[in-house]
Amino acid sequence: MTSDPAELCRLIAAVGPLDEAAMAAARARQAQLIKPPGSLGRLEELACQLAGITGQPRPRLERAVVLVLAADHGVVSEGVSAYPAAVTAQMARAVLAGQAAISVLARQAGAAVQVIDIGTAGDGVAAPAASPGGALIVRKWRRGTANLAAGPALARAEALAALTAGAAIATAAAAAGGTVVLTGELGIGNTTAAAALTAVMTGQPPAATTGRGTGLDDAGLRRKIAIVERALAVNRPDPADPLGVLAAVGGLEIAGLVGVILGAAAGRAPVVLDGYITGAAALVAVALCPAARGYLIAGHCSAEPGHRLALAHLGLAPLLDLDLRLGEGTGAVLALPLVRAAAATLDQMATFAEAGVAGKGDR
Amino acid sequence: MTSDPAELCRLIAAVGPLDEAAMAAARARQAQLIKPPGSLGRLEELACQLAGITGQPRPRLERAVVLVLAADHGVVSEGVSAYPAAVTAQMARAVLAGQAAISVLARQAGAAVQVIDIGTAGDGVAAPAASPGGALIVRKWRRGTANLAAGPALARAEALAALTAGAAIATAAAAAGGTVVLTGELGIGNTTAAAALTAVMTGQPPAATTGRGTGLDDAGLRRKIAIVERALAVNRPDPADPLGVLAAVGGLEIAGLVGVILGAAAGRAPVVLDGYITGAAALVAVALCPAARGYLIAGHCSAEPGHRLALAHLGLAPLLDLDLRLGEGTGAVLALPLVRAAAATLDQMATFAEAGVAGKGDR
Repeated sequence: MTSDPAELCRLIAAVGPLDEAAMAAARARQAQLIKPPGSLGRLEELACQLAGITGQPRPRLERAVVLVLAADHGVVSEGVSAYPAAVTAQMARAVLAGQAAISVLARQAGAAVQVIDIGTAGDGVAAPAASPGGALIVRKWRRGTANLAAGPALARAEALAALTAGAAIATAAAAAGGTVVLTGELGIGNTTAAAALTAVMTGQPPAATTGRGTGLDDAGLRRKIAIVERALAVNRPDPADPLGVLAAVGGLEIAGLVGVILGAAAGRAPVVLDGYITGAAALVAVALCPAARGYLIAGHCSAEPGHRLALAHLGLAPLLDLDLRLGEGTGAVLALPLVRAAAATLDQMATFAEAGVAGKGDR
Repeated sequence: MTSDPAELCRLIAAVGPLDEAAMAAARARQAQLIKPPGSLGRLEELACQLAGITGQPRPRLERAVVLVLAADHGVVSEGVSAYPAAVTAQMARAVLAGQAAISVLARQAGAAVQVIDIGTAGDGVAAPAASPGGALIVRKWRRGTANLAAGPALARAEALAALTAGAAIATAAAAAGGTVVLTGELGIGNTTAAAALTAVMTGQPPAATTGRGTGLDDAGLRRKIAIVERALAVNRPDPADPLGVLAAVGGLEIAGLVGVILGAAAGRAPVVLDGYITGAAALVAVALCPAARGYLIAGHCSAEPGHRLALAHLGLAPLLDLDLRLGEGTGAVLALPLVRAAAATLDQMATFAEAGVAGKGDR
């Protein structure tokens, strides 16, 4: 693990623009396929984006991996979550055991799962005897963050090290080619960090970016908003310094996710975002590296109100909008069949000429 | 094939209410699964609906079949479509050959395809030498409808016969149990019939229910609206007589789809609607048999403006909203992974007790 700032510079420089020639070829092929032009709607745009990301006019996405980054948050001591911090590591274990929602959905979708313990509290994730749900990777040098309402959650070097670790994992996943990288997370208290990050990076007030998380009541929500306001007052994070914002009010899994986005983009892999936490990570990633935006696919829009603001700031339209607010990567993996469908229709449908179907205006 | 009205009465009577006990059991199980209550949003409601439909507290949906009903429309002579009528049979052949969008998407989703020629014009569907894309079923006693702008599209007995044929096919598909029935269609000109049907059944004006179909320009859209207005003026369909409306301004594939909905519901199978055409069929099916509504799942909302009106009238919220306007069943099969995900999470996730995860409020 490294906290060398030069590593971040190398990573940012490695993210190239989308391949315009591949996109043009994909668009030209779309126009010849046996359907009215544009009738596959957003799947056609998505297919062109996938061509631009991969550099292939007919992208084939044969692999998919959900990276579930798990870490804890010191701010939980303020009572911002309906669940105790121990649930982070317990849920990570349940994912590995194949028992969690993301386990079920990834199995159904044919996606591999990797759980990355990048900073859980206490003894961390106790791997189950059998791990049908995925593999555990430990990249941990700190047990949870400090309380962001009392000072910086992380030192800048710690945020950078988590980012670099996430990037390395995503780069490795992307190296096989034809891989869709799906983002996921576990972290009791992390909607508080996401609310603070989103407020700073979008310029919206905490009251607009803070939601009920796993299920706060009205009094709990008011307390959570006040804590996010306090975090911003105490840390005074500067949106022109995204890494500083990430350290001050982020989290280890969020820093890791920033790295996942940049590492996947550097490896020319599409990145499917999940909910509010991964959206907050995307705000930081795109602020650090605007070219990364083209590699992002918004899997869904969460019921957390700040997520819609984050997606709007990023200029991303979600594929799904189903009132999900579970995280883990569930909204990303639910969108995976749509990503594959976009690529498969572009690649596998016949042209009017091949199928002997009359075209528009033929009589 | 029969056009015996008693058959329709038997079919309607066979559609029972959703199973409240199975729904209550599903709801109770949802509350014990390792996630914050309600955090899977619409998937949780959908899972309960599937329990109510199938009568199983943990429904297992092992099979899926897309029924693609193909027929032609006399109104095409009025110039309402950008494509010639021959494309209906040509596209049916392409579906069977595995070349169409629905072929690619059904293969990806693991759904079987049946193409039902229920009234194509001319010589009908020429089955290809190999049919990797699905099976052809012919239930055809008329080659396309009459021009609905000049009089009834179909005789009442013809509409009833097509409905009964569709019902028999869906009942057979549902008989295996654990089967999701997905609706699809092919029919150049059929958005004109859907616009007329939707106007009558929802009380909206043709200008609100008529869209560009496969890609009309502004002048074409104005002409199409005028034709729908003429169809209503000439036929004076009465919304209190849904079968009469179906005959007057519907089509053979639309009548067949009404039957598919009723037959699947009678067989306690979930029915995933596709776009505007299948939505118009659902308006008629639910008017004939209000209990059928509980069996419907709106796969997506089409870019055709009338589809949103039809779904609102039915009280159905679409799972996807991706500007699709292709038909064939594409929007239904794209939603299939979500339907399966709803059932799989309910069935396969662990409970808090099983996984040893602390619950809400535990400290």
